[in-house]
Amino acid sequence: MHERAYQLFEAQQTERGIDVQQVKEKIKALAIETPSWGYGDSGTRFKVFKKVGVPRDPFEKISDAAVVHRLTGACPSVAIHIPWDKVDDYDKLSKHAKELGVRIGGVNPNVFQEEEYMLGSITNADPVIRRKATNHLLECVDIAKAVNSDIVSLWIADGTNYPGQGDIRKRKHWLHESFAEVYQALPDDMRMLIEYKFFEPGFYHTDLADWGMAYNVANQLGPKAQVLVDTGHHPQGTNVEHIVAYLLDEQKLGGFHFNSRKYADDDLIVGTSNPYELFLIFYQIIDALQDADAGVRQTAENIAYMIDQSHAIEPKIPAMIRSILNVQTQYAKALLIDLNKVRKAQEAQDVLAAEQAVREAFEFDVNPLLQTIREEMGLPLNPMQAYLDSSYPEQILERGIGGASW
Amino acid sequence: MHERAYQLFEAQQTERGIDVQQVKEKIKALAIETPSWGYGDSGTRFKVFKKVGVPRDPFEKISDAAVVHRLTGACPSVAIHIPWDKVDDYDKLSKHAKELGVRIGGVNPNVFQEEEYMLGSITNADPVIRRKATNHLLECVDIAKAVNSDIVSLWIADGTNYPGQGDIRKRKHWLHESFAEVYQALPDDMRMLIEYKFFEPGFYHTDLADWGMAYNVANQLGPKAQVLVDTGHHPQGTNVEHIVAYLLDEQKLGGFHFNSRKYADDDLIVGTSNPYELFLIFYQIIDALQDADAGVRQTAENIAYMIDQSHAIEPKIPAMIRSILNVQTQYAKALLIDLNKVRKAQEAQDVLAAEQAVREAFEFDVNPLLQTIREEMGLPLNPMQAYLDSSYPEQILERGIGGASW
Amino acid sequence: MHERAYQLFEAQQTERGIDVQQVKEKIKALAIETPSWGYGDSGTRFKVFKKVGVPRDPFEKISDAAVVHRLTGACPSVAIHIPWDKVDDYDKLSKHAKELGVRIGGVNPNVFQEEEYMLGSITNADPVIRRKATNHLLECVDIAKAVNSDIVSLWIADGTNYPGQGDIRKRKHWLHESFAEVYQALPDDMRMLIEYKFFEPGFYHTDLADWGMAYNVANQLGPKAQVLVDTGHHPQGTNVEHIVAYLLDEQKLGGFHFNSRKYADDDLIVGTSNPYELFLIFYQIIDALQDADAGVRQTAENIAYMIDQSHAIEPKIPAMIRSILNVQTQYAKALLIDLNKVRKAQEAQDVLAAEQAVREAFEFDVNPLLQTIREEMGLPLNPMQAYLDSSYPEQILERGIGGASW
Amino acid sequence: MHERAYQLFEAQQTERGIDVQQVKEKIKALAIETPSWGYGDSGTRFKVFKKVGVPRDPFEKISDAAVVHRLTGACPSVAIHIPWDKVDDYDKLSKHAKELGVRIGGVNPNVFQEEEYMLGSITNADPVIRRKATNHLLECVDIAKAVNSDIVSLWIADGTNYPGQGDIRKRKHWLHESFAEVYQALPDDMRMLIEYKFFEPGFYHTDLADWGMAYNVANQLGPKAQVLVDTGHHPQGTNVEHIVAYLLDEQKLGGFHFNSRKYADDDLIVGTSNPYELFLIFYQIIDALQDADAGVRQTAENIAYMIDQSHAIEPKIPAMIRSILNVQTQYAKALLIDLNKVRKAQEAQDVLAAEQAVREAFEFDVNPLLQTIREEMGLPLNPMQAYLDSSYPEQILERGIGGASW
Repeated sequence: MHERAYQLFEAQQTERGIDVQQVKEKIKALAIETPSWGYGDSGTRFKVFKKVGVPRDPFEKISDAAVVHRLTGACPSVAIHIPWDKVDDYDKLSKHAKELGVRIGGVNPNVFQEEEYMLGSITNADPVIRRKATNHLLECVDIAKAVNSDIVSLWIADGTNYPGQGDIRKRKHWLHESFAEVYQALPDDMRMLIEYKFFEPGFYHTDLADWGMAYNVANQLGPKAQVLVDTGHHPQGTNVEHIVAYLLDEQKLGGFHFNSRKYADDDLIVGTSNPYELFLIFYQIIDALQDADAGVRQTAENIAYMIDQSHAIEPKIPAMIRSILNVQTQYAKALLIDLNKVRKAQEAQDVLAAEQAVREAFEFDVNPLLQTIREEMGLPLNPMQAYLDSSYPEQILERGIGGASW
Repeated sequence: MHERAYQLFEAQQTERGIDVQQVKEKIKALAIETPSWGYGDSGTRFKVFKKVGVPRDPFEKISDAAVVHRLTGACPSVAIHIPWDKVDDYDKLSKHAKELGVRIGGVNPNVFQEEEYMLGSITNADPVIRRKATNHLLECVDIAKAVNSDIVSLWIADGTNYPGQGDIRKRKHWLHESFAEVYQALPDDMRMLIEYKFFEPGFYHTDLADWGMAYNVANQLGPKAQVLVDTGHHPQGTNVEHIVAYLLDEQKLGGFHFNSRKYADDDLIVGTSNPYELFLIFYQIIDALQDADAGVRQTAENIAYMIDQSHAIEPKIPAMIRSILNVQTQYAKALLIDLNKVRKAQEAQDVLAAEQAVREAFEFDVNPLLQTIREEMGLPLNPMQAYLDSSYPEQILERGIGGASW
Repeated sequence: MHERAYQLFEAQQTERGIDVQQVKEKIKALAIETPSWGYGDSGTRFKVFKKVGVPRDPFEKISDAAVVHRLTGACPSVAIHIPWDKVDDYDKLSKHAKELGVRIGGVNPNVFQEEEYMLGSITNADPVIRRKATNHLLECVDIAKAVNSDIVSLWIADGTNYPGQGDIRKRKHWLHESFAEVYQALPDDMRMLIEYKFFEPGFYHTDLADWGMAYNVANQLGPKAQVLVDTGHHPQGTNVEHIVAYLLDEQKLGGFHFNSRKYADDDLIVGTSNPYELFLIFYQIIDALQDADAGVRQTAENIAYMIDQSHAIEPKIPAMIRSILNVQTQYAKALLIDLNKVRKAQEAQDVLAAEQAVREAFEFDVNPLLQTIREEMGLPLNPMQAYLDSSYPEQILERGIGGASW
Repeated sequence: MHERAYQLFEAQQTERGIDVQQVKEKIKALAIETPSWGYGDSGTRFKVFKKVGVPRDPFEKISDAAVVHRLTGACPSVAIHIPWDKVDDYDKLSKHAKELGVRIGGVNPNVFQEEEYMLGSITNADPVIRRKATNHLLECVDIAKAVNSDIVSLWIADGTNYPGQGDIRKRKHWLHESFAEVYQALPDDMRMLIEYKFFEPGFYHTDLADWGMAYNVANQLGPKAQVLVDTGHHPQGTNVEHIVAYLLDEQKLGGFHFNSRKYADDDLIVGTSNPYELFLIFYQIIDALQDADAGVRQTAENIAYMIDQSHAIEPKIPAMIRSILNVQTQYAKALLIDLNKVRKAQEAQDVLAAEQAVREAFEFDVNPLLQTIREEMGLPLNPMQAYLDSSYPEQILERGIGGASW
């Protein structure tokens, strides 16, 4: 039935003036990086639930990520987290990835899980700890070179819990100094993406609390520093797509960490809480791809799309497949927006028509389209079912319980 | 200098028509329960920082709690958490407490840290797991009897992460059924306090999400079931003191878990984030103590005040002492409200005068009062300094690292 | 093309086991009340923008509402607001409605726009003002009788701006007393729906702040008192569908005020901010319609669906049509949920399958279905276009500027 | 008794190492601007309550502001809003102010109360409207020159209500263009302060949504453009003092609009909702006044403190007096922080000691200090009582009802 459904879809969209061929090409080209840590155990502060079959080392994590890519065709790279994914031989790790059809993507330092970092890493009042933390960031630049990655992705978990606990301005200076040193170490073709977070684990203040702080330091550093938007890192009621549009316009949007949330930084499967928000984010990106300014267009083209979730209660690989399908769905819908119609309504100041021109695209069923694309790419029509029907779920059971976790 | 300060304070308050003697008696009578788990290691989902000197078993936790009581005179009981504080011989534990000048207070079951509870405990779709969870609640009633406690304090961490994951109405029924069974098991002089929480660890829905759900089930159960208000378990912008006043009026306020927060359930030291809120909570309680209805007055008199914090980065015992001092400070200030003045302004519909009549009490410095009270009770004037100057901080170092945690 | 699309839709759904005929009947039976005040000028506190063609009196408001019903077939009744819609002869107003194919629905008292109500209406410290306000509520019961309506819908805007300003417990008692008097006056077949609101216009506390307070008073009054859920009246992060399910289970959900919001009580067109939330609300209702308990089923069947928006910048009638279409869309999608599939996955504790079973229904394009239904009902396929193409928009221009507003 | 209290206070603070003389001088030097519109009627979207005695024109507003200054000694300037305060002869207005002992301060344009601005002013898709709006901003620069003011304070109420309604990036460009034109028109000694707001009246997006957007445009414009922080314009859970510290460090904090709120932009009397927040804001400012960088110190010295409230239910002049007293109280407390002690604890990484070093200052009763200062300045000890006892409240009754409102 999906062929018939697709034919109808194509006819409908063509009638609307949508170039379906182009839409298909764009969807095929969408690459979403999955995180190595998304395949390990995770949890809340109350409990990390242990699952059988979770990968025991970086090599197994990449194997799992490769399965997701094989089934979806959309995840050619895998982000790694250091020291969780520290290995003696990065060449070997890269080769392992390559053999499985993927490559290593963003390198993520970890400056929040050692005892010394309790009161801050690169913003710690103790210069010895700051030095150690910055050295770790520099090490990650080296690892990125070693694995041929062009992205170092920085989440600094620093913050304070109480008024007065830290000197806010001094900590800002220390953070800028550390980042400046990292920036200097970047090769020409490498970008550092700077993530911000409204709260947690610092509850009173986080040193990089919002896009404005991430943007400001990126701006002061130079063109190789950009902002990374984690969709769960904002206060309630934030218009995330506005921030996306703003950063695109300033040519400072570097990438995304996709996930979803209802209240705090829940790190749930992307697209499950408010799918319309994801659609509206893609609308801003697609609109920017047609900007008059080549710099804006180029920024939009180079966005690094990454999943960053902590699915604690679901089986890991299926949860990742679901995430990828959800991103594809909203991206596909956003590509169906008739941007000319939207713009005409905006110019005519027709509020209802403009709103409707955006939302009508959201109402289409893009499953026939996505299935057809998968068929054309030689992928299973239903990647989730294909995974469940495969031998992989059983195969990994031999790993036992107590694999990698964070 | 504090004598001179106290003399002035007494003169000032007497002039305002405040019965300082009565205020002093009330402050001396304020009992705040500290939680055994507040003396162990804790953290965020990102990291539990390990401290040297943390108690290694329930006996040592009670020893620490007894030190806090010895220094503040305000913490005669200690809440326990089962199975964290499970022992073979509860009589021995009770005696240990008694010898140290304290007693065991509220018994808190734990239905969130076993693998079976991943998708719910008493609301789990699997009847075997529900049975196990209810049995654990019943066990806690038995333990409460064994330790001569009159409170079982129930936080059910059940919830779901996604729309559709659970059958919301069925889960409600299961929860009510389980609670009914527990209620039946309560001896006449024991209360069950029902805690609610807006989010976490369930991110899509928590089965007891707000005071209304806790109140409704308590109401259906009977007079021995009451609501427990954790000050950090509300959505942003909530008027917590309104809920307190409402529950008092319905004679269903059973107790508090005190802590503070800025964004989510941060579990910081009570009174550090918005001390005025704590003051306003006490204002409602003190006002209810003068209610025309004896039932309301009695409810207010029987409130169980408990600390429930997760101070992850501070030394444990000092953090607890600070919490107690902060609660005393706000309680003392609230006792300085001239309620007649407030009520007259309310009746005269004088908004500014009514607001000012409440807030002027908040502006007084109650340190001289609290110091004088401590002097009269034979306590150190500055319990924090007395602790730091004592041999206890050094003494506990021999416990080493890696004590109890949650 | 919509016939072809509908054929495909029917085939798809039949294959999924959905009884499309039944779905169509249910959608045809969905009645959504529009509010008379939704046709007048409105705005924010900063500015009410005046539009040409806005109705000048209650008769013209009903005429506009009748147009919306004529085009959508879904809005057979019109809510009125007293005194905004006060007329000398309610019989005449009812006949006017009847002639235009609609009837008068819920009667809404207004106790917030007279100078006396500045510090409260039925909770005012002044008994004379309380009497006046209660009398107005009773007058609305009489008006409801006069217009043959069976619903009085109560939003009490009372609250305070400052701590201490009002006596929270006394105000609660006064509110309960007033409602008890109204309840006594209700004829057997009339319901009073009690609305709650988290904030505004009272900024410190609102006397009916949440569903729990509305539920509690409704419970104490009796079966003719129920709770009304306004989708915009909750704190950020609230799971509204949970409250819906909870109230259904307690047989206390009386109706809805639909609208949407991003931050506060924005009163935007329903379904424009987070359409998935509306879908999930309908999921809970449809699920409850199959409950084992006849009382729960009956409650779900008798829900009063009402629009309550303040679309300040859009043309009024088109904004209302859009609202109706959005509600129909999400209701139709929710009817496509395979409830058996959901329940099986819930029982099997398969988190991903259960979530997906709910969300897959959201992904279908229900436009072909809705168009076919309209065709079968003799309605325009596209009610919005039909309106814009009609002579009505021009016709109302003769009303000039400066019509009704709130 | 206050002399005795002050003597004790002085002794206590001197013992703590605080230079009381310096504290007194700083408090005496604190100037807080009151807004002309704060003396007129205001309300919520539901109702503007009309009060007897409200000023009928700009001259009477300034008279009222002068009374507040006469009683508090802290409000030497009055902000004006154009066109609300438009007069034919600004020289006459300035002289009127001078005669009464005050002067005209910040000039605030109004680009939200004309029909043309419904869909935006300087970001409107229509260039004619943008031109009109920018001309109004330029007019305000001229008025500022005419009244010898050095501040133009810009709140642009532009935003959209729905996704797709406006072109976010284009609107950003239009806003920047308009501001650039205004910047060019500024004389050397005039600053433009750029205000941001998270929501309202635009509910989907506001064009200047947060400090980051205001900062970015100010940065691109140059040193005469700075950010204005309205304490009520942030999402829930925001650490406002962090933003303050950040902007100070970047030398871009220009001023404040003080008020308080519990949920949205409630515009209540400053210091009534969470007084500790105001204290913590002043702590950051006072700390920055000792910064090593002269630019940071100078920025902190030049902050323009302004009240911006919409007290709808209170008598106007008393509400303003209360606001001033509340700001003085928190400023005075912040001046009692022993900054050396805080910094030592920060350096020693002693979390509890650092928090306590800040909060202990908040606990002091500064009333004796403020009363002594008033005595020394020849002001009434209790400005509120002095006002109520004066003939002014009765005198203004002759103005009748229906004065200025917004």
